[in-house]
Amino acid sequence: MDDQTGERLYLEDFHVGQRFRSGELALDEAEIKSFATRYDPQPFHLDNEAAKNTLFGGLAASGWHTAALTMRLQVDGGLPFAGGLIGAGGELAWPRPTRPGDILHVESEVLDIAPSRSKPDRGIVTVRSETKNEKGDILQVLTVKVVAWRKPA
Amino acid sequence: MDDQTGERLYLEDFHVGQRFRSGELALDEAEIKSFATRYDPQPFHLDNEAAKNTLFGGLAASGWHTAALTMRLQVDGGLPFAGGLIGAGGELAWPRPTRPGDILHVESEVLDIAPSRSKPDRGIVTVRSETKNEKGDILQVLTVKVVAWRKPA
Repeated sequence: MDDQTGERLYLEDFHVGQRFRSGELALDEAEIKSFATRYDPQPFHLDNEAAKNTLFGGLAASGWHTAALTMRLQVDGGLPFAGGLIGAGGELAWPRPTRPGDILHVESEVLDIAPSRSKPDRGIVTVRSETKNEKGDILQVLTVKVVAWRKPA
Repeated sequence: MDDQTGERLYLEDFHVGQRFRSGELALDEAEIKSFATRYDPQPFHLDNEAAKNTLFGGLAASGWHTAALTMRLQVDGGLPFAGGLIGAGGELAWPRPTRPGDILHVESEVLDIAPSRSKPDRGIVTVRSETKNEKGDILQVLTVKVVAWRKPA
């Protein structure tokens, strides 16, 4: 466990099975609608009444909003990589929708560590992150490859 | 090819190899910084000078911003699914960073169509989408499973 005021980790500091937990972030209806207005303007993200008759059964955040909020939690100390968080891509799933009033946090685990063969100053750390609400519902699962830097000599 | 003013497609209307192209959307420096301030506050997304000495070599949009803009282009007719675009998850890669001034569009192709076994009113269409800038650089590749509804009787 770590936070933004704590130490930041280099490639040598990671081990498979290492776990992290982020801080918390609350999401309200206004922010759900504001994000959706710009990036995902569909009725189930914008209109409480219209959302009732959709697959979601009520207002839900865009999955991309959940992903963006997860990134904010990870940047704010949820994943304390030295040099910042640079992802090359990964796998993403949204098992349940994020709802107005949900308080999010992220639980992460290191799955793999691979030093670069061509670039001796770095490696790739594969991390699986579950984004959960305050009830423990899993809203997003992201498995992502993140650049990790070797400790400066 | 289709657009928001055109027809919206049901499960029966899709075929493997079917292709779509979205409209365009321009991204400027102010929006890159505004998104990053809220969702991905790291120097390479916020500060032109600081970004020069990072892996990105200059200001770059958050990958999650590229993903969100891609969704907007798809919702605005880039992927004309009847009943809207509901994704269950997928695979994501960012081969190159999105830069200030880039004009984005999305090119999509249907990879697979699977009627649901348990729910006769729907199926899953797997779509591969490349988000490109005006020079043709591939900024994001997303392979996503999208809910498609059968045509009402």
